[in-house]
Amino acid sequence: MVTKKIALLPGDGIGPEVCRQAVKVLDAVAERFGHRFEFTSHLVGACAIDATGNPLPDETLAACRASDAVLFGAIGDPKYDNDPSAKVRPEQGLLKMRKELGLFANIRPVTAYNALLKHSPLKSDRIEGTDMVIFRELTGGIYFGEKGRTADGAAYDNCTYSRPEIERIAHLAFQAAAGRRQHLTLVDKANVLETSRLWREVVREIASHYPDVTVDYLFVDNAAMQIITNPRQFDVVLTENMFGDIISDEASVIAGSMGLLPSASVGAEVAVFEPIHGSYPQAKGKGIANPLAAILSAAMLLDHLGLTAEAELVREAVDEALTNNILTPELNPTAPYTTEQVGSYVAFWI
Amino acid sequence: MVTKKIALLPGDGIGPEVCRQAVKVLDAVAERFGHRFEFTSHLVGACAIDATGNPLPDETLAACRASDAVLFGAIGDPKYDNDPSAKVRPEQGLLKMRKELGLFANIRPVTAYNALLKHSPLKSDRIEGTDMVIFRELTGGIYFGEKGRTADGAAYDNCTYSRPEIERIAHLAFQAAAGRRQHLTLVDKANVLETSRLWREVVREIASHYPDVTVDYLFVDNAAMQIITNPRQFDVVLTENMFGDIISDEASVIAGSMGLLPSASVGAEVAVFEPIHGSYPQAKGKGIANPLAAILSAAMLLDHLGLTAEAELVREAVDEALTNNILTPELNPTAPYTTEQVGSYVAFWI
Ligand SMILES: CC(C)[C@H](C(=O)O)[C@@H](O)C(=O)O
Ligand SMILES: CC(C)[C@H](C(=O)O)[C@@H](O)C(=O)O
Repeated sequence: MVTKKIALLPGDGIGPEVCRQAVKVLDAVAERFGHRFEFTSHLVGACAIDATGNPLPDETLAACRASDAVLFGAIGDPKYDNDPSAKVRPEQGLLKMRKELGLFANIRPVTAYNALLKHSPLKSDRIEGTDMVIFRELTGGIYFGEKGRTADGAAYDNCTYSRPEIERIAHLAFQAAAGRRQHLTLVDKANVLETSRLWREVVREIASHYPDVTVDYLFVDNAAMQIITNPRQFDVVLTENMFGDIISDEASVIAGSMGLLPSASVGAEVAVFEPIHGSYPQAKGKGIANPLAAILSAAMLLDHLGLTAEAELVREAVDEALTNNILTPELNPTAPYTTEQVGSYVAFWI
Repeated sequence: MVTKKIALLPGDGIGPEVCRQAVKVLDAVAERFGHRFEFTSHLVGACAIDATGNPLPDETLAACRASDAVLFGAIGDPKYDNDPSAKVRPEQGLLKMRKELGLFANIRPVTAYNALLKHSPLKSDRIEGTDMVIFRELTGGIYFGEKGRTADGAAYDNCTYSRPEIERIAHLAFQAAAGRRQHLTLVDKANVLETSRLWREVVREIASHYPDVTVDYLFVDNAAMQIITNPRQFDVVLTENMFGDIISDEASVIAGSMGLLPSASVGAEVAVFEPIHGSYPQAKGKGIANPLAAILSAAMLLDHLGLTAEAELVREAVDEALTNNILTPELNPTAPYTTEQVGSYVAFWI
């Protein structure tokens, strides 16, 4: 029996409705196990800009810091999409949150669920049995380097990585690999980039502390092919921020639906759990958004709080929904269930 | 009847054997149309390092400059693979060639051949009819920016783009789109990168000169999904160097085999034609390398020389090989033909 503070950042688009289902499932977990989860809700993204002019208000940041874990929905609104150079943008809230909370590791499991093989654009025999976790560095690299314009109108973005930035996420990834199939693949572009060469050096050094883990090195262009032609070869994939952004979204097609994929963004003090699907504004309020990614993110949150039996139970309940086809329209077009119904069904199995 | 100087840079691994078949086909074209192609062969890559210590000898560079077009095989040798920080590396020859010859646009058509649908990891109904061309900027961005280490052991790579660098390739891409399905997609990361925001600005300006071309903007992470879930939506894809490296290799899986994909790298003065498959050292000398990518690169070379009927004939001859299954083992495992035989068959149809 534990008491935990969970900060909810539902955000924009379908964020609030999928978060609601995750909370429903967490409430069911609390009741079944006698825990107490104290939820507080805070603004982030476009809705925060509308209300306060700031995509990540200080109040929200303080609430995250004061919590045991953060459950995040999604951010982004079409009214900001046409002008990526607008001064204030929803994404800034996300990037600032990562930086301020020091969320240096983005962790994304990619699983090919048997029930969903038919929905993937990839042939089933290629992806069946895929079970990998991508570790993407989240607070460094070209995302956070100096950027701007020169006097003669050129633009620049600097990419830098320090040893400690690489070391801390590499240790996390090696630990994960040690507890899985003992295989780690570093994705980089060491034939071109100096930062990638540093990643290789540091990973090679750290590898010596994990003698049971086999390490492979793959150039990112090759990885972009391998991840869809032969995804079963991967166990833990480790990579820098920009490459991770690209290959983790690419890998998401294996699952057959973005609506199934959770993520954790981990820092030294706090961790944020977030479905990867984004705000999907066209679906907002229609009851068609798939809540399973948010619910599986809640399962990762439970793991993070040390509540592993509870997390496992949530995953089993999600499997029930998959097996019995209690799914939203993108996965069950002929007899679809609503966001609400799918959430309730999973909560029922807890 | 024309006379043209073609510099051959066969390079490493399977480069020489596939180039030989492309030359055979070009010889057949010359004979049929009464042209004269004067071939000279030059060192590049690992074989150039072995012979001269330099992956791109001055003699080779001079020969490229003196030619009407360059046919390139592949570079890379396993003995350089384990140490991406080695002082002299085959890739340096490639990067230096791009820079010295000013090859600013890498052009890669991606076609889903009906005969090969079964070989793609992607489901046939997703990719059938795919016909896109990727324009990748090739001499700018993070590849060629300042890079190095700081005093405290951090590594950095700088990405910069100037307006003229973007303008010249954007014009090429818009011209191509105007002659195709009038649709251009810019792939960038304008929600994070200043260079991407400059790309959007410049492309938006240039778009006004091509009113018939519809322009879309796609973030690279989304593009990495779209390109495999719904590739038919793309006509011309325009992007910067690093993103182009990743998504063009990713898109290559659509074709079912790397062995089919040609490319052109175009500069103001000279252009280089190259199969995208690389040196594939394990296959070297075994007669199993697919020469069709090299042969289709020769077709692009003919187009570039203004010999469009000749180019078309080469493509039709390749179609004959595909239709009649005169293919190397990766595409025809039960009754495979050799590299040599496939080349001769295509030449026979000229
Ligand atoms: C919205 C954007 C800034 C963000 C990123 O690129 O990191 C998103 O794509 C993600 O992966 O969470
Ligand atoms: C070999 C390497 C430097 C090169 C690149 O990254 O450009 C290759 O991957 C390519 O795409 O031609």
